[in-house]
Amino acid sequence: MARMSFEFELVARDSATRARAGILHTPHGELHTPVFAPVGTQATVKAVTPRDLREVGATLVLANAYHLYLRPGAERVAQLGGLHAFMGWSGPLLTDSGGYQVFSLEGLRDVDDDGVTFKSHLDGSLHRFTPEKVMEIEQLLGADIAMAFDECPPPLDRARVETALVRTHRWAERCQRAHTRPDQALFGIVQGGAYADLRAESARFLTSLDFPGYGIGGLSVGETRAERGAILEVMDDTLPRDRPRYLMGVGDPADFFEAVARGVDIFDCVLPTRLARHGAVFTSHGRVNLHNARLAGETAPIEPGCECYACRNFSLAYIRHLFKAGEILGLHLATVHNLHFLLALMGEIRRAICAGTFGEMYALYHERSSGGGQQASGNGFQASGLESG
Amino acid sequence: MARMSFEFELVARDSATRARAGILHTPHGELHTPVFAPVGTQATVKAVTPRDLREVGATLVLANAYHLYLRPGAERVAQLGGLHAFMGWSGPLLTDSGGYQVFSLEGLRDVDDDGVTFKSHLDGSLHRFTPEKVMEIEQLLGADIAMAFDECPPPLDRARVETALVRTHRWAERCQRAHTRPDQALFGIVQGGAYADLRAESARFLTSLDFPGYGIGGLSVGETRAERGAILEVMDDTLPRDRPRYLMGVGDPADFFEAVARGVDIFDCVLPTRLARHGAVFTSHGRVNLHNARLAGETAPIEPGCECYACRNFSLAYIRHLFKAGEILGLHLATVHNLHFLLALMGEIRRAICAGTFGEMYALYHERSSGGGQQASGNGFQASGLESG
Repeated sequence: MARMSFEFELVARDSATRARAGILHTPHGELHTPVFAPVGTQATVKAVTPRDLREVGATLVLANAYHLYLRPGAERVAQLGGLHAFMGWSGPLLTDSGGYQVFSLEGLRDVDDDGVTFKSHLDGSLHRFTPEKVMEIEQLLGADIAMAFDECPPPLDRARVETALVRTHRWAERCQRAHTRPDQALFGIVQGGAYADLRAESARFLTSLDFPGYGIGGLSVGETRAERGAILEVMDDTLPRDRPRYLMGVGDPADFFEAVARGVDIFDCVLPTRLARHGAVFTSHGRVNLHNARLAGETAPIEPGCECYACRNFSLAYIRHLFKAGEILGLHLATVHNLHFLLALMGEIRRAICAGTFGEMYALYHERSSGGGQQASGNGFQASGLESG
Repeated sequence: MARMSFEFELVARDSATRARAGILHTPHGELHTPVFAPVGTQATVKAVTPRDLREVGATLVLANAYHLYLRPGAERVAQLGGLHAFMGWSGPLLTDSGGYQVFSLEGLRDVDDDGVTFKSHLDGSLHRFTPEKVMEIEQLLGADIAMAFDECPPPLDRARVETALVRTHRWAERCQRAHTRPDQALFGIVQGGAYADLRAESARFLTSLDFPGYGIGGLSVGETRAERGAILEVMDDTLPRDRPRYLMGVGDPADFFEAVARGVDIFDCVLPTRLARHGAVFTSHGRVNLHNARLAGETAPIEPGCECYACRNFSLAYIRHLFKAGEILGLHLATVHNLHFLLALMGEIRRAICAGTFGEMYALYHERSSGGGQQASGNGFQASGLESG
């Protein structure tokens, strides 16, 4: 029933890699995949307005059920018209279930087969999440896509990964039974740590539950790029090709190439906004530190030719001044640029897939990032020379 | 010579009060007076972009010579194309000379007849301002209007006020001699503390120097509204009617009425932006504290009918949530609203002067603010019931 609203059309597949371009239909508009979602944990992407998000090309925005449950409360958001109205974002929204956040509360939580009891990071108050409770929260929030409640164990402790996997699968079934909102898609989350066999088992089990989309959780937690690539290939082999795959918590330019080439459709990450607030901005020549003294007289923008508001209007010297002076406008401009940079890159990647040239783009990226490294110079697409730190 | 570019046309005078409406021509556009200038001390109005400033109706923006001299340096700003290019504001700019800031450095400065030696509030380094040095700085910055370097003594110590007044007058002459930039107007600053006779003497002396405009300094430092009103009437009696008068550091809705009614044309104040960052917003019913728990479920905007971006798109409940969660967007939205509120009010005041109805508006404001106080309800213009704290 719910699936009717969430049709996923594949519009192009790359012949040289596993990359695909698609359209995911949601009640709040179409998502052209591959897509990167800026993160608005507390119902705001830090330091920008919804209008800014539209202008940098954002289509999907992520918020966090755990954070919004604690503050201002899911019932409160529902009373105020739901998350779209609350945060003034009329496009598609996705809520993470909060599993990752709850299991990050080391020492503040106690997990059993039924759910998890934890202390609020805000005031120490005691709370309990079960799959049913999390579905209640996410349905009150009313994002277009809700993620199932899962357990995120340390990825290299096989015994714990196996135990968590059983729970994650039982919880996925319970989430599915508890989820009734027809204008919201519930995505299952594949776990299995760094173990290909467990990952495949998880993908097969969740596929049997027939979710309209699948999250790939528990990655981007310290594994090498090769390890992650191997897992993603297992995912592409075992998850259904006609459903979107969402690689959770990944948002570096280099990661985009590697994961798109392995069939990933959706990304989210706090990286571009967090880096921006620390004064680090993406450019086609690598990251630039806005605190750098050599920028004090630099009349060029962050990235010549970039169409973002920051690059169209301000010099590096001015933005550096804002950071040195502790001015909020610095955080804002750096955030606008980083989001625009990543979203423009993802747009280029999608266009290449549709034009049948992604294989070449990917090969060129590989050649340049392995050859030139941080010093790679002028190039045909924005991410060349960019390696994640 | 310079004056050619800075013609001040009076377009309307109120018959019931001393209020006037004018047009001040500057190299970066016309200023329709009375006008309120948001303060961008460090070459940015805190928490908003130049585009936001245009949208809330700002025409004149203030920056501070003392702050920009210390960081990033006046030569640096000049090398980067001047203050307009540096901060991305193509409209008229005004720089305060920094006199007020330097004389606020109690214990960190040493004044003599030639100038003042002071320690930077940033790093304790030693600097010296003379009238000539300040003119050099302001001409490097290149605002449309530069303020003379003056001494701001405590307003109720007559001996010190008299000594400072002699200095301020000598310094005004030296500023005038040192100021050569034809695309920048130099305004003299009237001092004289709380003493009507000294104020009149200062106004007469500075008028003899024939400045294209006059600042009224050393007010808004603790005097009562009645005391300030009396001084402003002396100013109106002694300053030339065909030159703009700028009441420095005043920006409360109630102050607008009282000062405009006494012939003031230009205002600036950090109040609306500073209050906003502390979660206090102007409304037609008085200030609202955005931290207030009773707003948690409030679906209305800050001010129903307000045309600002914050009020068109967000509920009080959401903005309160942003403040509780420590989100930058809260500071931004409150700042946008407060600036829009004051600028819209000044626009209403100007239209009333031009329509010949300011006297009625002022009488109505008086009636309501004395009768209803903070609890005053619905009204015909935005500032009723607003008293400065």
